[in-house]
Amino acid sequence: MSTPRADGFRMSGEFEPHAGCWMAWPCRPDNWRNSGAPAQRAFAHVATAIAEFEPVTVCTNRADWPQARALLPAHIRAVEMASDDSWLRDQGPTFVVNDFGDIRGIDWQFNAWGGMYAPHDQDALIAQKILELERLPRYACEMVLEGGAIHVDGEGTCITTEECLLNPNRNPGLSQDQIEAVLCNYLNVERVIWLKHGVYMDDDTSGHVDNLCCFARPGVVALLWTDDAADPQYARSHDAYARLSETQDARGRRLQVVKVPMPTPLHLTADEVAGLSPGAIARRPGTRLAASYINFYIANGGIVMPAFNAPEDAAAQRIIQSLFPERRVIPVYSREILLGGGNIHCITQQQPA
Amino acid sequence: MSTPRADGFRMSGEFEPHAGCWMAWPCRPDNWRNSGAPAQRAFAHVATAIAEFEPVTVCTNRADWPQARALLPAHIRAVEMASDDSWLRDQGPTFVVNDFGDIRGIDWQFNAWGGMYAPHDQDALIAQKILELERLPRYACEMVLEGGAIHVDGEGTCITTEECLLNPNRNPGLSQDQIEAVLCNYLNVERVIWLKHGVYMDDDTSGHVDNLCCFARPGVVALLWTDDAADPQYARSHDAYARLSETQDARGRRLQVVKVPMPTPLHLTADEVAGLSPGAIARRPGTRLAASYINFYIANGGIVMPAFNAPEDAAAQRIIQSLFPERRVIPVYSREILLGGGNIHCITQQQPA
Repeated sequence: MSTPRADGFRMSGEFEPHAGCWMAWPCRPDNWRNSGAPAQRAFAHVATAIAEFEPVTVCTNRADWPQARALLPAHIRAVEMASDDSWLRDQGPTFVVNDFGDIRGIDWQFNAWGGMYAPHDQDALIAQKILELERLPRYACEMVLEGGAIHVDGEGTCITTEECLLNPNRNPGLSQDQIEAVLCNYLNVERVIWLKHGVYMDDDTSGHVDNLCCFARPGVVALLWTDDAADPQYARSHDAYARLSETQDARGRRLQVVKVPMPTPLHLTADEVAGLSPGAIARRPGTRLAASYINFYIANGGIVMPAFNAPEDAAAQRIIQSLFPERRVIPVYSREILLGGGNIHCITQQQPA
Repeated sequence: MSTPRADGFRMSGEFEPHAGCWMAWPCRPDNWRNSGAPAQRAFAHVATAIAEFEPVTVCTNRADWPQARALLPAHIRAVEMASDDSWLRDQGPTFVVNDFGDIRGIDWQFNAWGGMYAPHDQDALIAQKILELERLPRYACEMVLEGGAIHVDGEGTCITTEECLLNPNRNPGLSQDQIEAVLCNYLNVERVIWLKHGVYMDDDTSGHVDNLCCFARPGVVALLWTDDAADPQYARSHDAYARLSETQDARGRRLQVVKVPMPTPLHLTADEVAGLSPGAIARRPGTRLAASYINFYIANGGIVMPAFNAPEDAAAQRIIQSLFPERRVIPVYSREILLGGGNIHCITQQQPA
């Protein structure tokens, strides 16, 4: 078994050109209220927005295929593929590219975010099935990892969080150095920037980095921000800011960190909780949601970003637009996705061109 | 809704170049003995033989995917797709091409061979799912038809059987003229040659033409044959010979009919019946099987033909080889497929290049 690094492949930045985008249709009634109907509409809105920029494929369980096909616009491809839940960022492969335009994929071990959800045997097959569908070679990696736990600049730098990657619910037998070595060999990076925490209350993912910060391009990082010292997110964002600002990337650059305000805190309502079937995780009314504008998807020529009908929506959009002056920014109201424990970036996976 | 003819598309001959071949993994324990294990091995042999000539995709139910993936060679693509049974010729789309290399597909109505099997709701979706997977436009046709019920020469001629297409279990509301008009408009043919019957005891399919005869190329038809006047197949083959010889194809050619001997009659054994779960069709020991060498698949540069360990195997192979001098003929022992009610052609569907 070789590795992407040994074979000259690297994970490209999300801002590099895509062949398309993968998603999965929400299905679990214990995680998506009202049997998933509101989430399905939200997913369809996201898919439709992304499809303005690049081809989109939505994977659906057998029973959901006719309904997904009917709800999605005809130009979005609906493909039958069993899943336990619908976070393609985490279940899907991490694609890698070489200098000759070849594409392969990494199939990480998947344990449902440290065992948060059962069953997850079908989710664990998705990366392999997608690579098979696309006739792309596959690197099977022994390490547990989800795509939402990493961001790369495509030029040798990875950002991740200790909260997630060092959590004993993922790879208890691996040291930080060993985990970093796997990241370096599979993503083909030389520099791993370790942030301490993800976003406050992002417990379902153990603090995935993709809800907290991301590369807008090499050398530039967008970071979820609050100036409210009383907010639990304050220390997390400030610590991340300090770590990002004080380090260098793989090319020796100082990172420019652009602050994106977080929305005024949002909380689960009793009505929302009432729509859930009993299941994996007990959700309680009043629980704070890990809402973040950072959880956007970078498409070919576009950005599809979360909107919450919050006072900060407009400012966040303005800042994100300034980070991507060449791309058209489409906000999609995504509270329903947030209720499931993630957002637009979490439910998407880019396939490089 | 347009038709292929109106849009300049036609069904190409199977002997024209392929992009690849579609199959489905056998699953029904009431049709495939011993929970399908022997049939799965036979299907894998067929897939492997075809894959020597062109890419092969095997569709499998969710539960069977890991097993199919493990049993099939790595270069054969296994794609998750729900099915009730595994006759891709009949469940799959009929592909059509135009002069610019574009490909589309016809999605016929599917009623499980006149209602022989239930359920068949998943089979009825397969053509649409395959076209969606391949991002190919789809013609939804209102008429019930299976791919095994037709053969074309790609130059305006179709052969079919009255036993199947005029059977009231298919399209009781359509006259022969109306059915012929649909064939002409969807396959883009001008001449439909109606044979009376298919092969003796091919009752599961109501006498599909693809077990009885096929085009080796325009102007040349291979026909299952017996000189034994006491055999029930005798009258059927002789009637077909007469009809084929006395007619002209769409280009005004007299057809050359090449006789391919049928194997010495084969019959279901008690052991084979014992391995079946109770189900759709009662199978009885001693029942004659509709064995035919005609049920071969024409691949790019190859022929994958049924073999039965019968005395006629060698002669049949020699004749088929002479019909396709440029192609390499691979016989595959296929009694297990025959036990399910068809053979190699029935379980395959070519996608034109």
